[in-house]
Amino acid sequence: MTFTTELQPGVCIEPEAVTQDYVFNHTMLRVKNPEPSLDFYTRVLGMRLLRRLDFEEGRFSLYFLAHTRGREVPEDTGERQRYTFGRESVLELTHNWGTESGDSQYHNGNSEPRGFGHICFSVPDIQAACARFEALGVPFIKPLERGMKNVAFIADPDGYWVEIVQADLNGEMGRG
Amino acid sequence: MTFTTELQPGVCIEPEAVTQDYVFNHTMLRVKNPEPSLDFYTRVLGMRLLRRLDFEEGRFSLYFLAHTRGREVPEDTGERQRYTFGRESVLELTHNWGTESGDSQYHNGNSEPRGFGHICFSVPDIQAACARFEALGVPFIKPLERGMKNVAFIADPDGYWVEIVQADLNGEMGRG
Repeated sequence: MTFTTELQPGVCIEPEAVTQDYVFNHTMLRVKNPEPSLDFYTRVLGMRLLRRLDFEEGRFSLYFLAHTRGREVPEDTGERQRYTFGRESVLELTHNWGTESGDSQYHNGNSEPRGFGHICFSVPDIQAACARFEALGVPFIKPLERGMKNVAFIADPDGYWVEIVQADLNGEMGRG
Repeated sequence: MTFTTELQPGVCIEPEAVTQDYVFNHTMLRVKNPEPSLDFYTRVLGMRLLRRLDFEEGRFSLYFLAHTRGREVPEDTGERQRYTFGRESVLELTHNWGTESGDSQYHNGNSEPRGFGHICFSVPDIQAACARFEALGVPFIKPLERGMKNVAFIADPDGYWVEIVQADLNGEMGRG
């Protein structure tokens, strides 16, 4: 079986050459309190904090995280800036100062009015990863046994949905 | 200047080794109508449709897109599945069948109750990219001249915010 995704209405088969140097760089989530969020994305999911930017006038901070897998990350400010904004799969967490002490909960996108859905991490062994999340006390939205086979959803500290998949499973999922 | 991001409260300095094979695989957005969305992400932003999955029982389809930059994408179903779910920076668009004919608008995360913020593309030349978006009739949420210097926001067909940055600019942005 081969794919004919190019024949899908709307799909541009030959995008302009200039677009081939575009990079899908990051996804931004607002977080109530950076401390449990940084703990979750670094300790539970293994990301590294690449860059923190504080905006005193606007009273917010931005935290940029990514997996670096032992690869060297530039120490120099300008170099690190280019690395952070030039690579793939960066997660940006926005902290509006003061929200950590309030009661407000951010909308995670999966209650009405819906829209944004989730972010997703691919793991080499989904059974082992889910057992590890359970041992770490991470809340599950959909454990492995329920819902779609071979797919789990955990919740981050703000309730954002985080999907967990294993790349070599799910071959039979859906049609298409 | 060097970075001391490891000293940030909450940051785990040495995540467990198993997490270093985790991949931040995708971000999911719900779209009203796949045709203008696929056109936007392929023609305007240069992504390629990797995989379409149809779920007849649940009456929805999933579209997985990414930049492939001329690199070969496996044709075989299982191989393509592993490629799609194993790589970085994939965008998943969810289409619930029938929404394209209704009036409903999805929540883009940037009106109350806020939460999800935006996705972001890094481009080699932000002036040229923004001139191109303007020529293509793409709506701007924040043009280059307004708001933060060297950062623009365009809107996708559902009104999701799409940030545009150039990796070697913004070195002076914020503090930290």
